Amino acid sequence: MEKVDLLARLKPEIDLVDETMRADLQSLAGRELIPSSLVEVLEHALFSGGKRIRPLLCILAAALCGNNSKVVYRLAIAFEYLHVATLLHDDVIDHADTRRGRPAANTVFGLAPAILAGDFLHARSMFLVGTIGGKRCLELICSATEAMAAGEFFQLANVQKFNQSEKDYFTVINGKTALFIGAVCETGGIFAGAGNKEIEALKTYGANLGRAFQIQDDLLDYQGDPAKTGKTVGNDFCEGKMTLPLIHALKAADKTERYFLLDLLKGRKSERSVKLEEAKDIIAKNGGFEYGRQLAEKLIGTGIAALDILRARHNEQILATLTGLARYVIQRDK
Amino acid sequence: MEKVDLLARLKPEIDLVDETMRADLQSLAGRELIPSSLVEVLEHALFSGGKRIRPLLCILAAALCGNNSKVVYRLAIAFEYLHVATLLHDDVIDHADTRRGRPAANTVFGLAPAILAGDFLHARSMFLVGTIGGKRCLELICSATEAMAAGEFFQLANVQKFNQSEKDYFTVINGKTALFIGAVCETGGIFAGAGNKEIEALKTYGANLGRAFQIQDDLLDYQGDPAKTGKTVGNDFCEGKMTLPLIHALKAADKTERYFLLDLLKGRKSERSVKLEEAKDIIAKNGGFEYGRQLAEKLIGTGIAALDILRARHNEQILATLTGLARYVIQRDK
Repeated sequence: MEKVDLLARLKPEIDLVDETMRADLQSLAGRELIPSSLVEVLEHALFSGGKRIRPLLCILAAALCGNNSKVVYRLAIAFEYLHVATLLHDDVIDHADTRRGRPAANTVFGLAPAILAGDFLHARSMFLVGTIGGKRCLELICSATEAMAAGEFFQLANVQKFNQSEKDYFTVINGKTALFIGAVCETGGIFAGAGNKEIEALKTYGANLGRAFQIQDDLLDYQGDPAKTGKTVGNDFCEGKMTLPLIHALKAADKTERYFLLDLLKGRKSERSVKLEEAKDIIAKNGGFEYGRQLAEKLIGTGIAALDILRARHNEQILATLTGLARYVIQRDK
Repeated sequence: MEKVDLLARLKPEIDLVDETMRADLQSLAGRELIPSSLVEVLEHALFSGGKRIRPLLCILAAALCGNNSKVVYRLAIAFEYLHVATLLHDDVIDHADTRRGRPAANTVFGLAPAILAGDFLHARSMFLVGTIGGKRCLELICSATEAMAAGEFFQLANVQKFNQSEKDYFTVINGKTALFIGAVCETGGIFAGAGNKEIEALKTYGANLGRAFQIQDDLLDYQGDPAKTGKTVGNDFCEGKMTLPLIHALKAADKTERYFLLDLLKGRKSERSVKLEEAKDIIAKNGGFEYGRQLAEKLIGTGIAALDILRARHNEQILATLTGLARYVIQRDK
């Protein structure tokens, strides 16, 4: 119930984010700066049911620090642009067929349009951040974007590395998700003219929310309801992808169980599919899921606690929304 | 002879561009912000014999306007980064095997590293432009980057469009090449604190140099020496790509010749390869190559003339170098 209330309460902000993106694209198309074929790809990629978490976090962070202006929406859409740019390129890289339950852009329009539309959104994003947010915001977002690419490289380097540590795992998710979401929250604070301690608190909140988000994704991959997530159960394991529950279980398991999992991981995908339930039981028995759940909760707790110094702003309602969003991240079932 | 002298005279600047890129990458790798696997792709893509035209133009534009500081090199490498980012993505899109006579990054490292390294360079480029050049430079470069992606979309929309006009052709090359090179020159002027008329002149110079560069590329594709260009002769025609000589010839040719060319263009690639010499003869007879050559010369003339107002700066040697570079663009044989 709480989740529904929260998202319903944020609907006006989400709608305004969408409107701002549409107006931005129309302004470019109207000046004939972009062809209709590009607009088509952008609309497909941008308006297909994203949760708009990143823009919302930027808007809420700015509001918490006292800036409720409409201009912040122009800054905030930059983060949806950047996020969707990475999704476009990720789907090309993964040869993905679907995204958010719809055909992926690379499937509908082809390789070139998907890559180029990503590049376009990338540039547009930097433009908005640099011109609206200023130099400090640009530095943050560029560094976070570099870290996203670097995170993907760390992940590629970890493929088939079955003795990964928790540290390896966090190096990847910090780069791919957490630093960016932290930077989004920081940017909201910087835009609102917040103090350095407040900005640091927003970063801690955002980065921990990002980490917990990723862990929850990993848990849902094993334990989610396909009707809700829209994804097959156990996909990560079948692909041989090392996520937190599995990394923890491999460390905690006895010799027999560890060899069983390692044999599967080194073997064929079809074999992993067949023995998925056995693998899940071993992960569960060794506390892999419980560990992930507890760690995600701890991270969310740390993130929410960091916001304490912002209580002095007396924006209880926004603080409650940010707290609710953080809790939503680990309570969500899709 | 002149070309050799010109490039030899610029060797110290070219070397300093390379050193600045190496130092930049090392600073990131040293702080463990990027994994060695990413550095490897970046080094392969960046240090494989590029002419460094874009950084040189930025450095020379700044010097012409009175700024000879070493800082401009940090700004200038952003343009090589951005250029190489587009090459990385172009090679993925074109499934290219080679680049500058060496195996392309996508061939050596694969699809994902090539796309991600491009994204990384993209972000790093925007970071350097925004933090060193400031907001106005960032706006220019982001717009030029958006135009590059848009230009590629215009080009995709023109595939198999055999009745292209010269205007269609220029829409594509303005987006893909000319606006960016214009923005690079503008940025050098802005960085040096030049006046608006000077900045406008640098833009005109750069954009026309970019247009002529592209036309020369198209001419070399038909008429270059493979031993020098490293490319097969007639590749554009065999691929059915409409470039200026062909567009002009189709307009000037009589009915028989036009139908001959159109039949080939609508037919199979193998047939175009076989009849390449006949097609070249028709293009030549109808002044396609001569027209391209004259137009490129005219554009270079306009570009050089625009620099006149910068004579008041009394930097004759730099002005001579910029003039020489512009002439080199249309005299080069590779």
